[in-house]
Amino acid sequence: MSEAPTAVDPRMTSGCAWIDGVYVPSAEARIPILDTGFVRSDLTYDVAAVWKGKFFRLDQHLDRVLAGAGKLRITSPLTKAEIRTQMHEVVRRSGLRDAYVEVVITRGVPAQGERDPRRWAPRIYVYAIPYVWIVRPELQEAGTAVVIARDTYRIPPTSVDPTIKNFHWGDLVRGLFEAYDRDAWLAIHTDGSGHVTEGAGFNVFALVDDVLVTPERGVLEGITRRTVLEIAAELGIPTRVGLVEVEELSAASEIFLTSTAGGVMPVATVDGRAVTADGMGPVTRRVRDTYWAWHEDPRFVDPVQYR
Amino acid sequence: MSEAPTAVDPRMTSGCAWIDGVYVPSAEARIPILDTGFVRSDLTYDVAAVWKGKFFRLDQHLDRVLAGAGKLRITSPLTKAEIRTQMHEVVRRSGLRDAYVEVVITRGVPAQGERDPRRWAPRIYVYAIPYVWIVRPELQEAGTAVVIARDTYRIPPTSVDPTIKNFHWGDLVRGLFEAYDRDAWLAIHTDGSGHVTEGAGFNVFALVDDVLVTPERGVLEGITRRTVLEIAAELGIPTRVGLVEVEELSAASEIFLTSTAGGVMPVATVDGRAVTADGMGPVTRRVRDTYWAWHEDPRFVDPVQYR
Repeated sequence: MSEAPTAVDPRMTSGCAWIDGVYVPSAEARIPILDTGFVRSDLTYDVAAVWKGKFFRLDQHLDRVLAGAGKLRITSPLTKAEIRTQMHEVVRRSGLRDAYVEVVITRGVPAQGERDPRRWAPRIYVYAIPYVWIVRPELQEAGTAVVIARDTYRIPPTSVDPTIKNFHWGDLVRGLFEAYDRDAWLAIHTDGSGHVTEGAGFNVFALVDDVLVTPERGVLEGITRRTVLEIAAELGIPTRVGLVEVEELSAASEIFLTSTAGGVMPVATVDGRAVTADGMGPVTRRVRDTYWAWHEDPRFVDPVQYR
Repeated sequence: MSEAPTAVDPRMTSGCAWIDGVYVPSAEARIPILDTGFVRSDLTYDVAAVWKGKFFRLDQHLDRVLAGAGKLRITSPLTKAEIRTQMHEVVRRSGLRDAYVEVVITRGVPAQGERDPRRWAPRIYVYAIPYVWIVRPELQEAGTAVVIARDTYRIPPTSVDPTIKNFHWGDLVRGLFEAYDRDAWLAIHTDGSGHVTEGAGFNVFALVDDVLVTPERGVLEGITRRTVLEIAAELGIPTRVGLVEVEELSAASEIFLTSTAGGVMPVATVDGRAVTADGMGPVTRRVRDTYWAWHEDPRFVDPVQYR
């Protein structure tokens, strides 16, 4: 840290990446094309948000990415403390106050002709870019339009473990295109058996008979999702984590999506049908406001030392 | 082509890549970390083999990758003729006589804050490396040991279309580790309903009651698979493309795997049980020998102009 610059390098203001020990602007950051993180999507990753200069629940993101690597039998090249240091450092060097900070751990590049993945050296990449909004804040007030994907089911946990955060987005991207074709912006996927799972980068919550429900299985155990469950407990809103039938979305009085990339995002319509009169229901609003308030709560934050 | 070197650059002899209009050694070739081909595995790719200085069925690989891009609604930055030229060029510059030549077409890098994938500029990468063997030729004679993956099912076509060649290998890599844990080298995945699908980079064939069977659905429509079906027709071996029950593998007198990375690869054991007495059965041997003979057959080849 002693050699760090005292002023922000102007090339870094759109993001800074740390790759192979070197800090570069994120837009110029490159990874080996032969990395099996690319040619097999054999990796796990995580994204933490920095909001007003403070990481939110960074510890939980670090624990999750290391747990994911362990489940994949990838040995992280860095310890938890070292990853934390690099995540802080890329933000500090970018000067970004609101940032999307990603760490990726891959199985690495095989030596020529070596097909046994147990013999490869894992790689790690860290980068910060400006905060990403799945739904822009100015559009959140009116709520977003979603569809239930009709013919693309979420990749089942019997094929790919969704609790290991991954880039297997083929189904999710297909859902996005289905949404566009049907005049909506996002798609919620089922498991093919009538149960709600998740969408492209977000978990799903619905208020059904005054209980906030969210799927238990076949989804990422999102940190925003967990935060919302804790907020609900603090606000005295009953919750249920379990199977959620697609029909429950029709019966719901409020629906929102959660993600580190956008927070708590109200849903205005599902398959063209209005969920709430005003786009954002009162419970969603309370949860959302508390979510952002917690981003300045010392219990959960980890300030970046910009200097 | 006029500015091409007449001698091979020694840095290229382990492979040459073409990225952003520049030729570099494959080991040094890098792609943007922000490419959604990486951070969403939103891409299609293909691999053609060069054997003894000649591409094998290059046209079919080119047709498949462009069909895949079309299904993903990605507009290829290059035409079929242009991709062909670059695939030839990376091989020529590497000097490799036996090569694995890959083309990848990705959705590209989003402009900052732009989440609509329809607005991104697709990217294309081409590279050649030495020919890749899923099973090394010296080990093929004795046959390879495979397992039927017990708890990891192939990603279903209702989630990700396997006919669009993709890097969603989470299930396949999990299968490889299961194979290692069970003293084998490769895993065959079922669809979770008792039907054979495919494995990490290969299709599956079994000789059952003198009929060569291979799964129809939930698999890549491999060009080696198609070639084997044509070889069987030429050799007068009956074939069936349809549902293949896992039990049929137990009843099979021969089993082999097919891939552009290794050709026709005999299976010696499944779950520890011997398939054939000698590792490679007579039908497998005839098909394999014909497969390699076809690599020098003018009907199927496209010679590289090394000069």
